[in-house]
Amino acid sequence: MNTKIRTTAFIMAGGKGERFWPRSRVACPKQFLDILGCGKTMLQLTVERILPLTSMEGIYIATNERYRQLVEQQLPLLPPQNILCEPVGRNTAPCIGLGAEYILKGGEDAVMMVLASDHLIRQVETYRKVMREAVEIAAEEENIVTIGISPNYPETGYGYIRRDMEAPYRSAYRVEEFVEKPNRRTAEAYLRSGEYLWNSGMFVMKASTVQKAMQDYLPEVAEGLGRIGAAIGTDREREVLREAFSAMPSVSIDYGILEKAKNIYALAGAFGWDDVGSWLAMERYKSVDDDNNILVGNVVSADTRNCIVEAKDRLIALVGLDGVVVVDTEDATLIGGKEHIEEVKKLLKLLREKEEGERYL
Amino acid sequence: MNTKIRTTAFIMAGGKGERFWPRSRVACPKQFLDILGCGKTMLQLTVERILPLTSMEGIYIATNERYRQLVEQQLPLLPPQNILCEPVGRNTAPCIGLGAEYILKGGEDAVMMVLASDHLIRQVETYRKVMREAVEIAAEEENIVTIGISPNYPETGYGYIRRDMEAPYRSAYRVEEFVEKPNRRTAEAYLRSGEYLWNSGMFVMKASTVQKAMQDYLPEVAEGLGRIGAAIGTDREREVLREAFSAMPSVSIDYGILEKAKNIYALAGAFGWDDVGSWLAMERYKSVDDDNNILVGNVVSADTRNCIVEAKDRLIALVGLDGVVVVDTEDATLIGGKEHIEEVKKLLKLLREKEEGERYL
Repeated sequence: MNTKIRTTAFIMAGGKGERFWPRSRVACPKQFLDILGCGKTMLQLTVERILPLTSMEGIYIATNERYRQLVEQQLPLLPPQNILCEPVGRNTAPCIGLGAEYILKGGEDAVMMVLASDHLIRQVETYRKVMREAVEIAAEEENIVTIGISPNYPETGYGYIRRDMEAPYRSAYRVEEFVEKPNRRTAEAYLRSGEYLWNSGMFVMKASTVQKAMQDYLPEVAEGLGRIGAAIGTDREREVLREAFSAMPSVSIDYGILEKAKNIYALAGAFGWDDVGSWLAMERYKSVDDDNNILVGNVVSADTRNCIVEAKDRLIALVGLDGVVVVDTEDATLIGGKEHIEEVKKLLKLLREKEEGERYL
Repeated sequence: MNTKIRTTAFIMAGGKGERFWPRSRVACPKQFLDILGCGKTMLQLTVERILPLTSMEGIYIATNERYRQLVEQQLPLLPPQNILCEPVGRNTAPCIGLGAEYILKGGEDAVMMVLASDHLIRQVETYRKVMREAVEIAAEEENIVTIGISPNYPETGYGYIRRDMEAPYRSAYRVEEFVEKPNRRTAEAYLRSGEYLWNSGMFVMKASTVQKAMQDYLPEVAEGLGRIGAAIGTDREREVLREAFSAMPSVSIDYGILEKAKNIYALAGAFGWDDVGSWLAMERYKSVDDDNNILVGNVVSADTRNCIVEAKDRLIALVGLDGVVVVDTEDATLIGGKEHIEEVKKLLKLLREKEEGERYL
């Protein structure tokens, strides 16, 4: 077992965070915001959580040029060369492949813990324990370790991972298949079976494993990555990166590699993972008042139940409401039914079409 | 018949307009706002509507000192001495009595058309016709003419006037009694009977009739008014007004005089009267979109029905809402269920108790 291999965290922070609009904007999306009001942004929490398994030199942030300054401000101790800016968005496979190229160009192979920058984890110590084991398994051969979440209710909003319960390896099991978001009935069956985990989008593998998998399953991406890798450190780096990356297909790591690759293991994590998918997540983090409301900021209310209000200095006054979410910002206020609040993207589409609407994105 | 008597309009414009908060504020209540977005304030519309029956010299505005400047700005042609400022609010009886004193002090009796400053009337010509007849009847003896509204549905939010259908006088009937807001069942019976009219709060009588009625039914008020009347035009006017008016009981003209006086007639008006009681009135004035929404100002919406939104420049974005009223202002946003929007006073009470809450009133 190769225990000497370097461990890195590859944190993807290029997302738009649209479901947290209007607090989250194109100019400063969710991962750069202190959504919970805990004093740290989601990116800072992510780094703080994983730091004991690596070092600031081992942390890489994938984002785009627009957010470089935000990353520098929020992570002042991060080596600037560890901020990798994608010239355009091409989904997760090219992004992670790019990370592998830069890490390998450093001279040695390394395990990459691929992480989202906008998730939360309640039991940090348990999380670190699971990640340590994932790193150990990933360090061996060409293993890919996905971190699955033990489901505790039949969630229909996540993809699932089905394990082969006959083939354990340490605490992990071989992955049989990745399945799409199920309907309620199917999700209930998954929950009962005990074979399924939620796909958290976190996984761990060596940079060399990524590179090899790209060659095996996404040769078009691998070709571009090879040209970029060759240009790193030369004065053609930026130019080649822009040209070659832009030419890649847009493909997710799940679809492009994980669903096809061998040697995929799943480790089950039960550490209070939360993808903080919408404002409804506040119900899991903030305490409710006697009327089951979460009222943050300058709010008055009467005869109001089951509401979530994220106000700031402006006054939000509620009367006779039930099940409504309000998110107030200086120039825009979102008001939505709880059941529909994840459909905020419909509003963003309308704003893109509306004259002068772009200013609110 | 005394057809030579002067005709005046006595417009009460001291209300707080709380049900239109947060657009209506203590510093600038409903009657001074262009609530409908028609380019004129409700006070201006009221004056414009009645002007053909009198003249600017015949229009008196009762308000309080705080709003003198607003009245002057909105009615630049009004003689400044026709703005009567109550030192404190003492309900309608002392207010109208004060008007009568000032009018009589001018040297001659006059018919007073007592009007609210924040109601709307759709059929203005019909309204003027009814008011002309009311003036003629009121000019005779000590007649008091209330303008009742022919009900077209069983409204439970208004008081009613019961007429003696056996005793017509010109187009008017003698008033049998004033009744409080009925419940639904009773309102339906009133509607069926044909004897009942809505009490619009408009009535017409001579200033001398007011003075006499005060003496007969509200001697305590009459005494104070007498002292004020004697001081008008002297250098003790302000001082006596403040002292005597403040000492009066708070009593409505309905309760204090109309329910007791003789010679009360009701004229039925069917001229599209509307007391514009809350934001729900917008449904009667603004056209709805395909989803039965009224969206004014900078609004985007998706999957939203039966909503009323009064926005300005800030963006109000709605998703998945049904039956919600939103009123946006620079420093405060009201969001309420349609059924409960008239309970906005509960919020104002909370604001009065809240630290720094007064600033929003």
